[in-house]
Amino acid sequence: MTQQQRDALDAALRANPFDTSQTAAEHRRDFAQAFTVPYAPGVITRQGILGGVATLRLEQAGATGDGVLLYFHGGGYVVGSARTHAHLAAELARRIGVSAASVDYRLAPEHPFPAPVQDALAAYRGLLDDGTPPSAVVLAGDSAGGGVVAALLLAARDAGLPVPAGAAVFSPWVDLTLTSGTIESKAGRDPLFDRRALEWYTERYLAGADPAQPWASPALADLAGLPPLLVQVGSRELLVGDALRLAAAAAEADVDVTLEVVAGVPHVFHNAFGVLDDADAALARAAAFLRARLADAVTAHTAQS
Amino acid sequence: MTQQQRDALDAALRANPFDTSQTAAEHRRDFAQAFTVPYAPGVITRQGILGGVATLRLEQAGATGDGVLLYFHGGGYVVGSARTHAHLAAELARRIGVSAASVDYRLAPEHPFPAPVQDALAAYRGLLDDGTPPSAVVLAGDSAGGGVVAALLLAARDAGLPVPAGAAVFSPWVDLTLTSGTIESKAGRDPLFDRRALEWYTERYLAGADPAQPWASPALADLAGLPPLLVQVGSRELLVGDALRLAAAAAEADVDVTLEVVAGVPHVFHNAFGVLDDADAALARAAAFLRARLADAVTAHTAQS
Repeated sequence: MTQQQRDALDAALRANPFDTSQTAAEHRRDFAQAFTVPYAPGVITRQGILGGVATLRLEQAGATGDGVLLYFHGGGYVVGSARTHAHLAAELARRIGVSAASVDYRLAPEHPFPAPVQDALAAYRGLLDDGTPPSAVVLAGDSAGGGVVAALLLAARDAGLPVPAGAAVFSPWVDLTLTSGTIESKAGRDPLFDRRALEWYTERYLAGADPAQPWASPALADLAGLPPLLVQVGSRELLVGDALRLAAAAAEADVDVTLEVVAGVPHVFHNAFGVLDDADAALARAAAFLRARLADAVTAHTAQS
Repeated sequence: MTQQQRDALDAALRANPFDTSQTAAEHRRDFAQAFTVPYAPGVITRQGILGGVATLRLEQAGATGDGVLLYFHGGGYVVGSARTHAHLAAELARRIGVSAASVDYRLAPEHPFPAPVQDALAAYRGLLDDGTPPSAVVLAGDSAGGGVVAALLLAARDAGLPVPAGAAVFSPWVDLTLTSGTIESKAGRDPLFDRRALEWYTERYLAGADPAQPWASPALADLAGLPPLLVQVGSRELLVGDALRLAAAAAEADVDVTLEVVAGVPHVFHNAFGVLDDADAALARAAAFLRARLADAVTAHTAQS
């Protein structure tokens, strides 16, 4: 059954190959049409502001859990919005048992590197300034949003802010040097991207900035001091190597990291929850991981005070 | 509390540095003295034979669960025995809820590569010949025993045998080329090994055989067709790179793999269960992983028949 689900998803993705001749505006329109699905029953939404950055607040009817999930959507730093991934963010938050804020960070090419990371840091700082303890905050993001999460953790650490309780990243894009071996070895097996697609995004996002610097490629950075990380990636994607390099950097810096490679599924397969068992299982594990980090952080916080 | 536990373990390991001037016999004696601890209450042991290979059968009083854990001890292919790691194997089996057989594979230098892998394959084949379905078998091993597990999976696949339901390896030694970057980057932070210690073992085990061949360095092999793998490693060990390379090879071959890097702990920290919280937590996760693999395999088996 599950293999049938994987094959159907693969075919659906291959039916809409990435077209590098399209403009950013055209891609944004197509992306929004593909991803803006109705909310699940019980999800309550409202516009919010954190540190001057627009967010979409997502709550579940009847939910009472403490804690906040700060979510960063994917889209190669060029497309997507808080709304396009609100379905996924709300589902993850529901499974953790917390409310979520999906962050509308600025996008390239209008706002190239490092604008998204600056917005992420401003939003996180705003959350803390509003009185939320860092031990009650977890981060998550997919694809470029996973890159934002990792860069935000570096930025928060370097700014002297306390880091959140933990972070989960789905198919994170964390190495903009495009030098990992899986960009070649997974070519053709990834139904979504080829190297030219990745280049299309990096050109617009970096606008000439050094791709190897920490906020652009956190997988190449010193990750010392980061909280526990969960990295989930499909085995059928060019960015497997990004996930491996992020895990290696965490291990090098004595940071707790769990890397889960899910066989036979594509980039951010999590979006297919409800129709792909692998996606529901991965979200269940991610929610359990983040819930445990919130519990650990509260315990540590209580022990210190 | 946990950091105190980690510091105590680190200090204890540093008090007994590996001495490359000792003979294999001297190392075996010291290793046996250090590791042969009493069984936990309720563990029932008896000698066994699987495919002509000696094993130590480990059962829990009152346990009724189906399934068998085949365990492969560490010791660099030169030291250790089924008995030295029976404490760990029994604890993992207890947490899974199955019985265990700890395999007394032959050791170098008397029996160099590939004798241990041949014995592992013979024991696994013997288990199947005795009527145990592969869906009821899970494998685990630590250090060189993790290498045996990975090589056994390759050997079983290539022999046309059905693979077991899953495998968990703790700080696996799966790259005898000694080329991973962490052998340098973790030098001094690993309280147990330096490069010379690893060379001492490889020289005795390989006896001139090519270290890059699949059964010697499964992290460099094509892992296609292997069952789901769990890899747990400490961040303070030279062999972090082995674990990363094994995960990368699994991802390349579309094999489900979970890599957990536990911050601040040494090689096969699992041995310290009962006194190191990180060890108990890792064993709990490993047991949950293997229990889930047994459940999945039974479901798949039922669906096929």
